[in-house]
Amino acid sequence: MTQITQFLRRAVQTNGHGVATTCGPRTWSWHDFADRAARLAGALQGLGYQPGDRIGILALNADRYLEAFFGLATAGVIFVPINTRLAPPEMVFWLADSGCTGLLIDDAFMPVLPAIAAGVPGLRHVVHIGDAPTPAGLLPYEGLLPAAPPVADAGRGGSEVAGIFYTGGTTGRSKGVMLSHDNIVGNALNMLREVAVDTDSRYVHAAPMFHLADGAMTFLITAFGGTHCFLPRFDPLALMKLIEAQGVTHALIVPTMINMLVNHPEVAQHDLSSLQYVLYGASPMPEAVIRRALEVLPKANFIQAYGQSEASPVLTLIPHKYHCFTGPFAGRLKSAGRAVIGCEVAILDEEDQEVPRGTVGEVCARGNIVMQGYWNQPELTAHTLRNGWLHTGDGGYMDDEGFVFIVDRVKDMIITGGENVYSAEVEEALYAHAAVAECAVIGIPDPQWGERVHAVVRCKANAAATEEELIAHCRALIANYKLPRSVSFSADPLPLSGAGKILKTELRKPFWAGQDRQVS
Amino acid sequence: MTQITQFLRRAVQTNGHGVATTCGPRTWSWHDFADRAARLAGALQGLGYQPGDRIGILALNADRYLEAFFGLATAGVIFVPINTRLAPPEMVFWLADSGCTGLLIDDAFMPVLPAIAAGVPGLRHVVHIGDAPTPAGLLPYEGLLPAAPPVADAGRGGSEVAGIFYTGGTTGRSKGVMLSHDNIVGNALNMLREVAVDTDSRYVHAAPMFHLADGAMTFLITAFGGTHCFLPRFDPLALMKLIEAQGVTHALIVPTMINMLVNHPEVAQHDLSSLQYVLYGASPMPEAVIRRALEVLPKANFIQAYGQSEASPVLTLIPHKYHCFTGPFAGRLKSAGRAVIGCEVAILDEEDQEVPRGTVGEVCARGNIVMQGYWNQPELTAHTLRNGWLHTGDGGYMDDEGFVFIVDRVKDMIITGGENVYSAEVEEALYAHAAVAECAVIGIPDPQWGERVHAVVRCKANAAATEEELIAHCRALIANYKLPRSVSFSADPLPLSGAGKILKTELRKPFWAGQDRQVS
Repeated sequence: MTQITQFLRRAVQTNGHGVATTCGPRTWSWHDFADRAARLAGALQGLGYQPGDRIGILALNADRYLEAFFGLATAGVIFVPINTRLAPPEMVFWLADSGCTGLLIDDAFMPVLPAIAAGVPGLRHVVHIGDAPTPAGLLPYEGLLPAAPPVADAGRGGSEVAGIFYTGGTTGRSKGVMLSHDNIVGNALNMLREVAVDTDSRYVHAAPMFHLADGAMTFLITAFGGTHCFLPRFDPLALMKLIEAQGVTHALIVPTMINMLVNHPEVAQHDLSSLQYVLYGASPMPEAVIRRALEVLPKANFIQAYGQSEASPVLTLIPHKYHCFTGPFAGRLKSAGRAVIGCEVAILDEEDQEVPRGTVGEVCARGNIVMQGYWNQPELTAHTLRNGWLHTGDGGYMDDEGFVFIVDRVKDMIITGGENVYSAEVEEALYAHAAVAECAVIGIPDPQWGERVHAVVRCKANAAATEEELIAHCRALIANYKLPRSVSFSADPLPLSGAGKILKTELRKPFWAGQDRQVS
Repeated sequence: MTQITQFLRRAVQTNGHGVATTCGPRTWSWHDFADRAARLAGALQGLGYQPGDRIGILALNADRYLEAFFGLATAGVIFVPINTRLAPPEMVFWLADSGCTGLLIDDAFMPVLPAIAAGVPGLRHVVHIGDAPTPAGLLPYEGLLPAAPPVADAGRGGSEVAGIFYTGGTTGRSKGVMLSHDNIVGNALNMLREVAVDTDSRYVHAAPMFHLADGAMTFLITAFGGTHCFLPRFDPLALMKLIEAQGVTHALIVPTMINMLVNHPEVAQHDLSSLQYVLYGASPMPEAVIRRALEVLPKANFIQAYGQSEASPVLTLIPHKYHCFTGPFAGRLKSAGRAVIGCEVAILDEEDQEVPRGTVGEVCARGNIVMQGYWNQPELTAHTLRNGWLHTGDGGYMDDEGFVFIVDRVKDMIITGGENVYSAEVEEALYAHAAVAECAVIGIPDPQWGERVHAVVRCKANAAATEEELIAHCRALIANYKLPRSVSFSADPLPLSGAGKILKTELRKPFWAGQDRQVS
């Protein structure tokens, strides 16, 4: 049986006096950090939390976020990290759906707290993990810790759920992905083939900590007693300064962030040579950006990851050596990589039989990283995990050397600036407008964000709406990053497939003329 | 859920046309190899074998041994590798105890087959996997395969047992250690931190394949679609020739073998520069041998492993960088290393509480590599795995950086008047006396102290020492409570186990006649 807390104990065991976290003015050794996590667990027990209870975390990146992961796990409490970019109704849905009875929140999210308090009546305690004075009615994190006893691990592990990670619903509502201790430990071990980590590794949390992409490195760095550094929000200049000041060795950033970093006007004025590993994922990186990144960071190993929350999240990786454009290793960057070592990936047909190499089917997976299921959704779980395979919903094919190429998202997901936007969700918002007769939301090429959200709309007879009106309408319903950036209008009915579904491939064609739309 | 067969499928997926095995005149690609394993599974199913049945393997190292591992696993049959060095009654005991109904055997063990056939009446089929003509009454392996259909995986995995590995009983009967798919996969993943493997890796099976030490690399090399080479029996010259001929990159050999290799008179005449990784374990390597090995194989990374069958088997590792005698990394080679990444190691007292660093206790472990239990021995299993920890039976301590130092077997520890005395420490003091050729320190019953420290000594030819002299000699070296209270002298060499260790059970017998010695 594995436990995510074993990684914390290993950090203390091998590097107890080493630096665990450095965050603004605060620096904690692994001994300190473990004591704080154990006291947080003690405080939660004192407040009546039991193993299996759920507590949400809504905060920007900081040391206390990491303490929360391990403190909650020590108490056996399931963590529910909340996407900081959601609209308040979406946050409320996540917290209420997962049955959170506690919430850790920092200063940045005080404005949404009233909406949360009103929408999540089961919430018993709100713990303030910010740096400003604790508002009335909230429990002060730094007051709880010294008053609480450091408690022993509650003993949860193996296939028991450690965290619930919500994933945007392709058909409406979000789903809570239940990941076990074995899943999270397995995902960390699967990275070891490509990423060397040691006690002197220094990792920067540059991508948001609520996201599992950051999670893979979170647990690996901890296991080796390395140091965690924190960027509250992504900003290329702040990242460069942090890398330089802290001698950061490992980073995980999405391609949009890499682009902003390597093309920043001040990039040459900062010493980024400490960077040994740059992991990226969530969307493919344009060739020009890779070329520039290899030039600006010649000492760094670039590793591309592809996955999804249901896979803890990494399914496939492209090692650094394939980041080239000539020679025997060239050509793989258009793929999503090969299966990580503890995971089996196969391309299956509708009957879950493997298709021949080169044939498109659904990307499916088995192994140590497959989720335990969707929270409170046994039917959807059974469907997604049918026949022993995780069905990713991605269409793709595999070449003769096991490289997976993603050709289409079954549900037409748009990847914009590293965020997944499910077209159905945006369409639902558009359909709520009185003038909209028919619509389809697609990803179109964008030099900065990879793709941007575009809507094709046919208005009802005798009704009309402008682009600005529709976007403003959506803004009240969905998060900012999901908004259509542009709208085109069609007088004719949108093209349909034989099965009566809108043919998005047809709608995308004029925008993607002469380009390959890569989705990974 | 993990499956050991996922590693084979990954090899086919990523390197199907690459060389899986090269053994004498035979070479198989991973496609070939997988087909042969699937046909072996089909043949076994045709013979009536069901998932969960046990089949023994008694053979020297060869490609068919590896095919057997994966063929049996594909059929869901549990493999029981037999130690080739056992006396026939011991082989019979392993096969009968595990309830083997089938046996794969090669030419080298035909002489013991009558004893096995007589002693294991449940044996239904004996499959001949040797190269000589198949003797009458045996099934020819190479005849079975083409006649059988390649079958799909039976679907066993996770915590289901994949293999039973017997562990030598220095205290009476052998015990069958049940290792699951998760255990074997976990052990392979745990090695990745120190051992880089890829499709172009070439591993030589130089240590016997029945032993789990070889098993760790067996599964790792397979997972990456590397090549397996085989040395039927260890021989230093044959090993050098094989390394040179095949460009072997990875080897696992015990220190005695390394010593024979690096000090071989012909070592300079062979190009061994292809060796990238040399793993060793089972016993510590003398400093002189390490120095010589580093000199002879300057390009190789040396990695020391410590473990036991119950831990699948690796618990701790010493990375290459600690193979030095000056500088900040020196001094660690006297340890057993640090816990592998998926495993938690702690030093516990009799109540399973962690002792302070530097204090001797029992080496215990949790995590992904802990066995499922001893075959058909629920009480011994419960005792060994009590309180969620694997109790290794080794006494040791841990330093401030998590390095584990092994002191003694716990069962050889003497508890006298409430004090723990480690026999190895007393023996070290005795060996410092010029007259002592061989000694063993044991606990014998004492009405007042529970046990008292007793030494059995054989003096060198032409040398002598009295009991008083030896006790006085020790008094200058170790604490009073550790001193032998009595010494008996033996003119004959002390009794040895098959593994060359002094059999303290035999020495204790006359003192404990009619009494039970309680050991944890």
